Amino acid sequence: MNKFISAAIKQAQKAYTAGEIPVGAVVVKDGKIISRGYNKRESSQIATKHAEIIAIEKACKKLGSWRLEDCDIYVSLEPCPMCLGACVNARLKNIYYAAEQTSSSDNITNLIASSNRLNHKVNLILIKDERASTLLSQFFTQKRRAN
Amino acid sequence: MNKFISAAIKQAQKAYTAGEIPVGAVVVKDGKIISRGYNKRESSQIATKHAEIIAIEKACKKLGSWRLEDCDIYVSLEPCPMCLGACVNARLKNIYYAAEQTSSSDNITNLIASSNRLNHKVNLILIKDERASTLLSQFFTQKRRAN
Repeated sequence: MNKFISAAIKQAQKAYTAGEIPVGAVVVKDGKIISRGYNKRESSQIATKHAEIIAIEKACKKLGSWRLEDCDIYVSLEPCPMCLGACVNARLKNIYYAAEQTSSSDNITNLIASSNRLNHKVNLILIKDERASTLLSQFFTQKRRAN
Repeated sequence: MNKFISAAIKQAQKAYTAGEIPVGAVVVKDGKIISRGYNKRESSQIATKHAEIIAIEKACKKLGSWRLEDCDIYVSLEPCPMCLGACVNARLKNIYYAAEQTSSSDNITNLIASSNRLNHKVNLILIKDERASTLLSQFFTQKRRAN
């Protein structure tokens, strides 16, 4: 599992290099990475272009199906509500993430994941990896210095 | 406002004709529709291709910005967590919707909209229009008959 978290962090590094908030994701099926994505919000100027959305869309295209039922997603950062909702909509099984959101005091992540509105439950599993949070800290420190 | 709800329902009718769950959306800025979208999950086989996501992405492309700060979205159905999260991420001001989700007992919509995780609050306003829910009922009745 750690190699997939590392692959997600590698994607986050690509985002970092591109001047984007460093978040990366990979979708895994049968022990193989089937798609990769990193945050492209600034370069695309499209609000939905988060790492998870990009990776999910690529996986759907690859499998020719909107149902990613036997797939897991590995993300460098705990997903936002949009991306978490996308994971549920795509019927992903497990979400493994390497860093927690800093402002998750309202526990919205678990609320969405366990919502009775959605007819699919997704598991959220933290595999803490300091590289993911370090990359984010570096990014925001640099941003503050630049402003 | 009713004309924009009607425009969203018109998009939902397009989805219906295409054999998709009938949901439609339009993004409005300065009293004008700047983008339209309808559900294309089945035809695209991509889990993220909901009406709102399509309309938001088109609006971002049109304005050349991921920030749709002075824009509202009109949707025929109360958004799912993914689409609601996308509205928040795009900094939309108001979400007007014509029909409520039937299984919203856990109030997840309001929880996401008012989450302290997100650094933007979006307003959710129900403008009930029976045409939107009738279209959905017709669709599911027909589906059941076909199965």
